Amino acid sequence: MRPVYIVGAGMTRFGRSELPLVDLAGTASLAALRHASLGKVPVDGVVVANMGGSRINRQTALASALVDRLALYPAAAEAVENGPASGASAVKVGFQAVASGMADVVLVVGVEMMRAVDGLEGTDFVASLSHPEVEYIYGVTLPSLAGLFARLYMSRFGVERRHLAMVAIKNHDHAMKNPYAHIHQPITMEGILTSPEAVVNNPLVADPLCLFDCCPVSDGSAAVILASKDIAERLSGPRVRIAGMGQATDTHAVHEREDPTDLRAVRLASEKAFAMADAKPADVHVAELHDAFTILEIAESEAAGFFKRGEAHKAIERGETRLGGRLPVNPSGGLKARGHPVGATGVAQLVELTWQLRGEATDRQVEKAKVAYACNFGGFGNNVIATVLRKEER
Amino acid sequence: MRPVYIVGAGMTRFGRSELPLVDLAGTASLAALRHASLGKVPVDGVVVANMGGSRINRQTALASALVDRLALYPAAAEAVENGPASGASAVKVGFQAVASGMADVVLVVGVEMMRAVDGLEGTDFVASLSHPEVEYIYGVTLPSLAGLFARLYMSRFGVERRHLAMVAIKNHDHAMKNPYAHIHQPITMEGILTSPEAVVNNPLVADPLCLFDCCPVSDGSAAVILASKDIAERLSGPRVRIAGMGQATDTHAVHEREDPTDLRAVRLASEKAFAMADAKPADVHVAELHDAFTILEIAESEAAGFFKRGEAHKAIERGETRLGGRLPVNPSGGLKARGHPVGATGVAQLVELTWQLRGEATDRQVEKAKVAYACNFGGFGNNVIATVLRKEER
Repeated sequence: MRPVYIVGAGMTRFGRSELPLVDLAGTASLAALRHASLGKVPVDGVVVANMGGSRINRQTALASALVDRLALYPAAAEAVENGPASGASAVKVGFQAVASGMADVVLVVGVEMMRAVDGLEGTDFVASLSHPEVEYIYGVTLPSLAGLFARLYMSRFGVERRHLAMVAIKNHDHAMKNPYAHIHQPITMEGILTSPEAVVNNPLVADPLCLFDCCPVSDGSAAVILASKDIAERLSGPRVRIAGMGQATDTHAVHEREDPTDLRAVRLASEKAFAMADAKPADVHVAELHDAFTILEIAESEAAGFFKRGEAHKAIERGETRLGGRLPVNPSGGLKARGHPVGATGVAQLVELTWQLRGEATDRQVEKAKVAYACNFGGFGNNVIATVLRKEER
Repeated sequence: MRPVYIVGAGMTRFGRSELPLVDLAGTASLAALRHASLGKVPVDGVVVANMGGSRINRQTALASALVDRLALYPAAAEAVENGPASGASAVKVGFQAVASGMADVVLVVGVEMMRAVDGLEGTDFVASLSHPEVEYIYGVTLPSLAGLFARLYMSRFGVERRHLAMVAIKNHDHAMKNPYAHIHQPITMEGILTSPEAVVNNPLVADPLCLFDCCPVSDGSAAVILASKDIAERLSGPRVRIAGMGQATDTHAVHEREDPTDLRAVRLASEKAFAMADAKPADVHVAELHDAFTILEIAESEAAGFFKRGEAHKAIERGETRLGGRLPVNPSGGLKARGHPVGATGVAQLVELTWQLRGEATDRQVEKAKVAYACNFGGFGNNVIATVLRKEER
């Protein structure tokens, strides 16, 4: 298998966009292409991650439209959809194109414009990734699944609402240092949990999860340029290798799992990614986790192997996952505060980690970061992709 | 690059389906899995080709749902969308997974349920693959683009309506021998062109294209099992290798092409596929072309290199592309009569060719077929994938 490198990364600021879908993707693509400075090296392939274009934006064949907008023909192009893990799935597809030798340079761009729809339609759209017969038709939504999961996890492991709030506060703090984040709003324990005004500031969404336990609905796009070793060696700048990728699926319906608190797909995907990278969780200096809901950052950090089961909330209490801590988690602000334009998220995680490994993460830089980990979590843990990046010295 | 084999192929009969989308895909998948007889060899990856699930069937994360329905977890899974070329794009993604070494066995299944929507919504859905700003918003539909293209092609190369009718008649005849075809209806030159009743039987859709120049709107699913050489050697049955795959994009808007009759992406994709397979068009014994409209079979057969420009209609007149002719084209009945469930088509082409190379094509078997070619045509020629299959003797 040929080694694969990320030689460029770029994104739009997440939030609200007035651009057409293809231009939003084009903006992130151009940022990544500029970052890579390919010169005359052509882009052989384009992979677009998107979940809602057909339904929300009435656009299919988005990959062809993007190739046209960027005048990249005759580059091969297609779109990949894998629910909220669409971004990492697209990176994996691009990875395989380069690893197999079918392509030398691939642009992978994730994009979503979710704010084009109103609240109920948006909730229904996101719920369309649940099981069609035993979840969706009964009105299950993703926040409701997350609420049930949180209740069980909290009762089993002694996690309290203040731990969930700590995750939100940390990620909002991190996002203050990220100019690309959707939400620039510091929050406090008093403001969202302990003061009398907290119930107004932070209303219940799906018991026990409140507003600030949930990621926002965002528009945005993020892109990376993947390249073969030959190409990567010709370019300047630090070299970031995709050292390992692992993917695993689990039952589509959450209630069919023997232990719903066991994020089996996160565990298996992470084990595969670490094995391929010849690394272990303790080697990781910085991680981006899929905190669509605060409880997920806690649960995923355990399933990925960073903490023992039921121990992550104690590490969070000790500040270990903050910038400056032992293992900074979501220095970007995570889905919670950077935002979660569904198709873009998995790519945005790798954009942040590429910047971290290249030492380009400005105020939120994790010192001496050489190994990085990302978890992109599809459905409710039914399709997960873990990625391990490694900085290679020249 | 590791060699990749098709070790199993299966499909549903195209036409109308009452099954849920995931079950329709599951039915074709099970047929392909049964054909492959993998025994205890696990499926490592699943790639689903689908264009309309999100909009038409309110289902996303279809790949996860299918893994669950077939109990294939923890297999990696994602969906691929590339307009009408989604099928071959998904095969290419599966090919790269095996070729890179990320997977040993991959199920690729294309599926579409188009008859769930009414006519106007269906036409609008298909048109969503056109250019959003210079085609779609002006009301362009795929038949209208094809009509303009046909008019230009006919005036430049002396193609007449009777040549278009010959393509339709041939493909309807071929479909009579294919139990999986949507349309089992023999048609005649009198019935659709020369008799007084022809204008009633075969009304104009988009001048000069009439009803029988256009593919039907179909539901259906088709699947192939891809495997590494190690696995292929362990299984019984003839060995069909994906010897070459080429993909190319062109301008998204048809009118921006210097010569709209030059299907540049078909030409480039075919050149790449033949070069990779170390073969030439004259080596091909059987071909499946993307005849969404009759004129396309003519134009593609030239762009792929089987005939000189402007010569294909003469070869059709001589019967060269019929079963029993020099180069049988669309023995399955093609999109015209086998049907065109968009995401399934590119996979169905390879299902037919796999059966042909294995000698399992019953009444429509092309004798001594060893090299086969498929063209899956996305958008209006803006994203094309060509595939060359080769039978390897054991």
